[in-house]
Amino acid sequence: MKLELSRVVQGGSRLGVLKGLGRTGQHSLDVPGCLLYTRCGSAPHLTQDTLHTLSTLPSVTQVTLSTIAEHQEVLEECKDGFKKFAGLHETVLYCSLHDPAAPCPTGHTTNKTVSVWGSGGRIELSVAKFMALQRAVRPDWYQSMADGETWQENTSRKRVRKSVDRTLAHLDECLLVHHNTQELEGVEVFGVVEGGDILEERVRSARETAKRPVSGFCLDGLQTGSMNQSLRTQLITAVTQELPEDKPRLLQGVGRPDEVLACVEAGVDLFESFFPFQVTERGCALCFSLDVSPDPELAAVLRDDEERDTAGETQENGDLNHSDQTQMTSFEIDLNEKRYHDDFRPLVEGCGCYCCRNHQRAYLHHLLVTNELLAGVLLMIHNAAHYHAFFAALREALADGKLDLLKRRLLGERRAETGTKD
Amino acid sequence: MKLELSRVVQGGSRLGVLKGLGRTGQHSLDVPGCLLYTRCGSAPHLTQDTLHTLSTLPSVTQVTLSTIAEHQEVLEECKDGFKKFAGLHETVLYCSLHDPAAPCPTGHTTNKTVSVWGSGGRIELSVAKFMALQRAVRPDWYQSMADGETWQENTSRKRVRKSVDRTLAHLDECLLVHHNTQELEGVEVFGVVEGGDILEERVRSARETAKRPVSGFCLDGLQTGSMNQSLRTQLITAVTQELPEDKPRLLQGVGRPDEVLACVEAGVDLFESFFPFQVTERGCALCFSLDVSPDPELAAVLRDDEERDTAGETQENGDLNHSDQTQMTSFEIDLNEKRYHDDFRPLVEGCGCYCCRNHQRAYLHHLLVTNELLAGVLLMIHNAAHYHAFFAALREALADGKLDLLKRRLLGERRAETGTKD
Repeated sequence: MKLELSRVVQGGSRLGVLKGLGRTGQHSLDVPGCLLYTRCGSAPHLTQDTLHTLSTLPSVTQVTLSTIAEHQEVLEECKDGFKKFAGLHETVLYCSLHDPAAPCPTGHTTNKTVSVWGSGGRIELSVAKFMALQRAVRPDWYQSMADGETWQENTSRKRVRKSVDRTLAHLDECLLVHHNTQELEGVEVFGVVEGGDILEERVRSARETAKRPVSGFCLDGLQTGSMNQSLRTQLITAVTQELPEDKPRLLQGVGRPDEVLACVEAGVDLFESFFPFQVTERGCALCFSLDVSPDPELAAVLRDDEERDTAGETQENGDLNHSDQTQMTSFEIDLNEKRYHDDFRPLVEGCGCYCCRNHQRAYLHHLLVTNELLAGVLLMIHNAAHYHAFFAALREALADGKLDLLKRRLLGERRAETGTKD
Repeated sequence: MKLELSRVVQGGSRLGVLKGLGRTGQHSLDVPGCLLYTRCGSAPHLTQDTLHTLSTLPSVTQVTLSTIAEHQEVLEECKDGFKKFAGLHETVLYCSLHDPAAPCPTGHTTNKTVSVWGSGGRIELSVAKFMALQRAVRPDWYQSMADGETWQENTSRKRVRKSVDRTLAHLDECLLVHHNTQELEGVEVFGVVEGGDILEERVRSARETAKRPVSGFCLDGLQTGSMNQSLRTQLITAVTQELPEDKPRLLQGVGRPDEVLACVEAGVDLFESFFPFQVTERGCALCFSLDVSPDPELAAVLRDDEERDTAGETQENGDLNHSDQTQMTSFEIDLNEKRYHDDFRPLVEGCGCYCCRNHQRAYLHHLLVTNELLAGVLLMIHNAAHYHAFFAALREALADGKLDLLKRRLLGERRAETGTKD
């Protein structure tokens, strides 16, 4: 893969295209961008056909070893790898270790192994097993094995140091096996940067990982809930300064739009898209403005902002840091709420997704309160569409130098538009 | 509506077309046939778009008051009726009282009311409320209010008689309100035949209902689990003899293919299609032969039959009567079973549904054991497709005089084909 940057703010946001993806190199991905979140290769609730009704879809599909590790034998028997097994077509497959939407129990990492949790319980992975799995999965690109158990506050310096050392050792071992495995020829490896909340360890991890022949970097242990955004920004900024300009940086476990924006400003290129799935699972719909038109009278913006104001009573935590990822954010509306029972508007006025074109909030409320299975399907369609549109808007704002404006809109700072400059 | 019969076996099966459906009369439905089962207007798991990828789809959509009764106010406010509310297009809407896939608690019926269970608990319906709901729902066709609490074995003769009387009284009241309600002009009403397992009461109920100005008949209280097929056949035969030839008979609560066949032979025209949904919910896939080719060497048949034999060990109850509708039948395979973990075949060889065209049994097994949401979506697509194909095969067999052959195939009686005539 090859990262072509068209616009870089010194020590900050980067706009560009990640080219040459996939074994034949014909795929590309705009950055900042996100990967397609899946469980077992399927965007939750959606068939491939339904998924492809979305107008913008990431060209890279993410699967996690935690959902496929226990099926190693079948994948080996299937021979054609996970893409064929899951009926995926025409996509770049990226294989990560853990599911960002399913927090992993800690305390099971050893010097030589990490653990993932499947439906049948814990599966311990040595480098040998990890690499055998990659051989069976046949991704186009995968994350190296890593000890990521240092994201909790107050992890000791000693434990953090150990995690960095282990992760580097795992990387060296993975690369060794990788280069001796014919089936993995042409497959890309991302090194993993650890270091908990200790700046020096983050820098050391980044510097050492950058010395290895990797195609890019995963920033681990910075996920929502592990620290506040200001510390996260500080750590990411320090890390990205150690990383080469021409290789992509993928941040794991961060999906909230406000946090995404802040991390892009700190130099992150890629995100995982588990956030719209979490929103769907709580019966909510993403409903925030993507408009950065400077005209304060623009009807659409006002309508959205008014709505935000009305909704404000129950949704005031937009810029706070939640330790509980299942908690609702200010970027969504809760369709379970009684007030939507007679709201005959689409989820988002003007949204072109299947759900908004065909259904009203009142019907979704009705499906949710009667526990209908279609609710998840429809919400997933809208939330995925809105989230991918958010990344498109983010790139456009970056290209036009309007990132600040998008940020203010996102945080509902209408003041900034109507005269009161901050 | 107008039933045009093209082939009638005296006192038995009827082949034809139900024409003039819908307010403008442009829809029709082949009989024997089934209605499209929905919850809140949606085929479980499927969007309208996904649903319409099925090659044959019933032209009539069934909704049940139990899933919409608690939303009367919203429907009234919405003004355009349930079709608009649920985003349904181009379909005939039939509104029934209870959800055939959700057994209703008994003991709450009074002289003047029946009860349905919504997500918020019991809702008591008087004729006035029932008719107000119909006015809000605006179906093209609905079932009259009925006291259906006499399906349990050993219901006393007195209780059965009361149920027949009440149901006739409800029908008269409903028709009175109906004819005085402008919004219901052109809407069709089906009378409900009750009578438990008492032949004379069944006959009385049928005879009296037939005297009223109804468009057709619902046969209630004969559902799977209430009695064995031989008693059901006897009661239906007695009932249909009392009913006019030119009006359709809809049997409630029967969906198993073998029972459907037996009931068609007793003179039933229409069924509800909740069965594929029940199969889906237990993680199973419909997998029975629809082929009535007389050539015993036909590969497809043999393949299917072989499979039936292999599967036989765990699936021997195909022709028994289950009181538990959630129990697996011999018409399906259980994808949860370990043996499918490396079965790389489609659910049904040659099936043209989206699931069979794109996925293998091994992947569905994988989705099920990892609790993935896509499993239900894919199984629902296949099971609905296979079930509707079954009704098409049933009509074709009727037209060609091959109903017996289809029946034997369905029950796995290969003997009949290979020489040993029964």
